[in-house]
Amino acid sequence: MAGPIQIADKRVERSKAQVLAETYRQLVQSGISGVSIDEVSRVSGISKTTIYRHWPSRSALLIDACSRLGSAPDVPDTGSLRGDVRALLARLSDQLQTANWSSVYPSIIDAAERDPEINAMQAALHKAFMAPFDAVIERAKAKGEIPSDHVTTDLIATLVGPFFFRRWFSKEETDERFINAIIESAVR
Amino acid sequence: MAGPIQIADKRVERSKAQVLAETYRQLVQSGISGVSIDEVSRVSGISKTTIYRHWPSRSALLIDACSRLGSAPDVPDTGSLRGDVRALLARLSDQLQTANWSSVYPSIIDAAERDPEINAMQAALHKAFMAPFDAVIERAKAKGEIPSDHVTTDLIATLVGPFFFRRWFSKEETDERFINAIIESAVR
Repeated sequence: MAGPIQIADKRVERSKAQVLAETYRQLVQSGISGVSIDEVSRVSGISKTTIYRHWPSRSALLIDACSRLGSAPDVPDTGSLRGDVRALLARLSDQLQTANWSSVYPSIIDAAERDPEINAMQAALHKAFMAPFDAVIERAKAKGEIPSDHVTTDLIATLVGPFFFRRWFSKEETDERFINAIIESAVR
Repeated sequence: MAGPIQIADKRVERSKAQVLAETYRQLVQSGISGVSIDEVSRVSGISKTTIYRHWPSRSALLIDACSRLGSAPDVPDTGSLRGDVRALLARLSDQLQTANWSSVYPSIIDAAERDPEINAMQAALHKAFMAPFDAVIERAKAKGEIPSDHVTTDLIATLVGPFFFRRWFSKEETDERFINAIIESAVR
């Protein structure tokens, strides 16, 4: 039987979910700088006092909303580093063109330049998204497929950097030809 | 002798310079999303009506301010593609750590996701900053130093992408060892 405490808890959970949903909607539409707590309060019908009771700062709420942007891909196991890297880059290339996080991420990178809380969140997001690359490279080293003194973070930068460069800076396509060219240049 | 028209012209130029200087100050401090026309008007003492007479939109003013962020490097001529690329990457690495544009650029990338005017400006900025890379690669092709069917934009992405990746995403150092590793992997 639900007592008064459980009912209050449920109401709190529902309020928090409404705030998060509206924050996420604004985040995807306008990036971090476009999220307005006034507007979140107005649309969700939850008072700013209540919002700040659950999230001590605007950054804390943004961090919670950003955690919904996507999850890291699984670690592929195709039997070779090239195959694994191809699978990861094909997925990355697809996500960069279609996923919500791809248009929101520049706003996170921007905010991280000036906000230490957002910077810490971005570092955690980055680590999670790069973990599968790290895993397949470390496995290839353990199997002797590449030299064990190859610097893993160098290899990740040469594999992923060109894709980020094309999506957000040069705004060129990352098709299969490009994926192959990058693997050819980076994995030897 | 200065007539009334020249005096008015000078006053207009001075007003515009004050507006641009304050916009640039806010841009460097807070990124594009942190620039407030209200605040520019308050600090510069120039009315918003006057500001909008000179710049038809907020984006137009931002674009003018961004043009002060830096100029493209000269085209080096060391006698080899590796030497030229090393000179350009050493300068890029240094600028990414010290130049104003390095902390402002993510806000431009972010705004470009949603603002077509800023997007066009970013494309022009990008083209100007990459022009020296394009020049040394095309020269190396003309001299037969690398195959003429090598895709120039692929090579630029493999050279510059890892540096952007480290500055804004993984936030790792780009020291001389890293510069050498990238050249080793990209230029063959």
